[in-house]
Amino acid sequence: MDTLRIEGGQVLRPDMTVERADVLVDRDDGTILDIGTDLDADASETLDADGCLVMPGLVNAHCHVSMTLLRGYADDKELDAWLREDIWPAEAALTADDIRVGAELGLVEMIRSGTTTFADMYFDVPEIVDAVEDAGLRARLGHGSVTIGKDDDDAWDDIEESIEIAREFDGAADGRIRTAVMPHSLTTVGEKYLREAAAEAHEDDIPVHYHANETTDEVDPIVEERDEHPLSYAKDLGMLTERDFIAHGVHVDDEEISLLAESGTGVVHCPASNMKLASGMAPVQDMLDAGVTVGIGTDGAASNNDLDMFDEMRDAAMIGKLAADDASAVAAEDVVRMGTAGSADAIGLPGGALEVGGVADIAVVDLDAPHLTPANDLVSHLAYAARGSDVRHTVCDGQVLMQDREVLTLDESSVMERAREAVTELRDRI
Amino acid sequence: MDTLRIEGGQVLRPDMTVERADVLVDRDDGTILDIGTDLDADASETLDADGCLVMPGLVNAHCHVSMTLLRGYADDKELDAWLREDIWPAEAALTADDIRVGAELGLVEMIRSGTTTFADMYFDVPEIVDAVEDAGLRARLGHGSVTIGKDDDDAWDDIEESIEIAREFDGAADGRIRTAVMPHSLTTVGEKYLREAAAEAHEDDIPVHYHANETTDEVDPIVEERDEHPLSYAKDLGMLTERDFIAHGVHVDDEEISLLAESGTGVVHCPASNMKLASGMAPVQDMLDAGVTVGIGTDGAASNNDLDMFDEMRDAAMIGKLAADDASAVAAEDVVRMGTAGSADAIGLPGGALEVGGVADIAVVDLDAPHLTPANDLVSHLAYAARGSDVRHTVCDGQVLMQDREVLTLDESSVMERAREAVTELRDRI
Ligand SMILES: [Zn+2]
Ligand SMILES: [Zn+2]
Repeated sequence: MDTLRIEGGQVLRPDMTVERADVLVDRDDGTILDIGTDLDADASETLDADGCLVMPGLVNAHCHVSMTLLRGYADDKELDAWLREDIWPAEAALTADDIRVGAELGLVEMIRSGTTTFADMYFDVPEIVDAVEDAGLRARLGHGSVTIGKDDDDAWDDIEESIEIAREFDGAADGRIRTAVMPHSLTTVGEKYLREAAAEAHEDDIPVHYHANETTDEVDPIVEERDEHPLSYAKDLGMLTERDFIAHGVHVDDEEISLLAESGTGVVHCPASNMKLASGMAPVQDMLDAGVTVGIGTDGAASNNDLDMFDEMRDAAMIGKLAADDASAVAAEDVVRMGTAGSADAIGLPGGALEVGGVADIAVVDLDAPHLTPANDLVSHLAYAARGSDVRHTVCDGQVLMQDREVLTLDESSVMERAREAVTELRDRI
Repeated sequence: MDTLRIEGGQVLRPDMTVERADVLVDRDDGTILDIGTDLDADASETLDADGCLVMPGLVNAHCHVSMTLLRGYADDKELDAWLREDIWPAEAALTADDIRVGAELGLVEMIRSGTTTFADMYFDVPEIVDAVEDAGLRARLGHGSVTIGKDDDDAWDDIEESIEIAREFDGAADGRIRTAVMPHSLTTVGEKYLREAAAEAHEDDIPVHYHANETTDEVDPIVEERDEHPLSYAKDLGMLTERDFIAHGVHVDDEEISLLAESGTGVVHCPASNMKLASGMAPVQDMLDAGVTVGIGTDGAASNNDLDMFDEMRDAAMIGKLAADDASAVAAEDVVRMGTAGSADAIGLPGGALEVGGVADIAVVDLDAPHLTPANDLVSHLAYAARGSDVRHTVCDGQVLMQDREVLTLDESSVMERAREAVTELRDRI
């Protein structure tokens, strides 16, 4: 058997306790064989975790990974103006090669910061599939469809593309890639298209993922036109089921929180994006209290401006307390759980916890640094003091993606160089 | 002349533009001799800044540096309970040695993350003076006095200590250390003591620094008892002058913002602390619009939980937009200016801008990393994507404190080891 032993570290268990243990991984099937201090001495390979915390790989549950190319492209603008004046024109000029290199840049950043799994909505998805296959991460990918401003034929084409992409790539990369049908949002896709997309997706047991309740500008028109709140509308459309997941959920009322909890629909909280675009503060503690499955996502790098899930967990704790007007709300344990198991559950992928028999998706965090000293509380440190650059090794599906801070699956220097060139050329085209 | 040339980088100028330039430093008097691309070829020493951004050292304008020992000691609690149940009992058990090692730990973290200057309120200040002298940073230090719960003699003793410490150490460490008289806050120090402390401080041209308007629990009693808002009370006490600076300023009304602007009193915004303790959102854009001098501080590591000013600038931009309900508020340029020149102005120390003739307090940020690629906008990257670990060299007063990520002035491993031991022993004593 081809095995990997991660040795010498402390291990974060699913109950958020930390204990001294090694982790033995079966690299053939990518699962965890054993966790303990007295493991079989022979392993094909070892990773040194002395002075480190071994934790589940982080799960970035909502992203637009190729937008990493647009990091810092436009900032400090309202969502609507930012999209219309900056982001959409730039996106319209992106080539398939840009999508590919943007994805690779984002994937390198994720691997570096301990993210092993992500959910992504974008276009030219086959490019992203190829990048994920090479990079070695786990992902739920989909094509984001928009129908407003399009004639009926073009609208259907875009919806069809989302459905076809989801069918074609589900199970790609040895099963590491799963898919979803991804209508962009409840306001940018018309009713009949949403209904059909959801029906077709669910027929094949494929989830639906979309943006919902991000800003009041998006909520109010639905309430006015339909006399019901967006998630009630989504339920009518068949888009609020246990397999589906929404991004944002900032402006949700109590009834909508109940709908989310009852249906088992996942919510991906994107605190940095919600702050940077002044969208508002999601009632995360209320959702957790109601039993909603809540994960965390970075959203695209253009509204964040990084893909560091440690930043995002910290942001979630910070804004969660403000939203609840309660410093005990959205505690360290909560955000670490949301950034791992909560995200994995929300997007319906394995991972998010270190358990025997579970997938070997692992981040090894180096604790031997001034900003993580003293070790009063390691879960607190993960939530409030650690950052992506503290990750020393990253393992996904039993394969080592980064060892001693060197990314093994992609050529980091080449990716950065190609990204710089791509943006220079993009600026000339716009 | 003993000179240092920082060569090959891009330089952040005071107007927030970035240009290719070298920086020549006079190490004898710690000032910048020249900035340009065609500098005198001879220098006693060079620092490589190829692929880097050369920026003013960050200025952490409000801290309790020895609390770094209590990082993660207690989290996710309301300010009042957190202070009474956790922080004050722990602080009561701190020895002078603990204060020293806690300070050194915080200083190592600051140097690592490009902070060259800070303002600090704590006790056992001579220990902190010694640590700062060794570490090489620039600081405004003071003894925090509290009088509530003390009899009149003890209260005066504590006020006297703050005044004496301020007089004794002003100008220490070759002038790198300046001082302030630091009554803890408008509610934890009685009126007659505040009035006397301010009068004595100003007699010697020493500033007064205190916490103000942090929570509604602190504002409401003053309004009820005195029928005036806290900063109006502070003005009556003579504590709202051009040389003074307050920490927080979360719950300030328009009249108080005018008082701050008219008096020239500095405000140190502490966004992470305000979020983590659910204190509220300071109206930073309103203060900037009114012409208030606004800086940024981390507050103590126990309510943050790190001393990384890059985190803090990002937090300030994020929460500033939410507070203003406007994504264009508190923009990238604003927070970078606040974290450098704004902070330096607020606390009345030199630095915060790279200018010929100005002090050579400099952070060199390595841009060659995936999360800072592509270079669409470097000021945006400083605000939204960079983190403390991106700092490669730190220079203060012309002396190199960190070179190629190695801290030169303190023994980092030894500091971390002593901090771990100190906390183990502290826990046994409590
Ligand atoms: Zn999104
Ligand atoms: Zn403070």
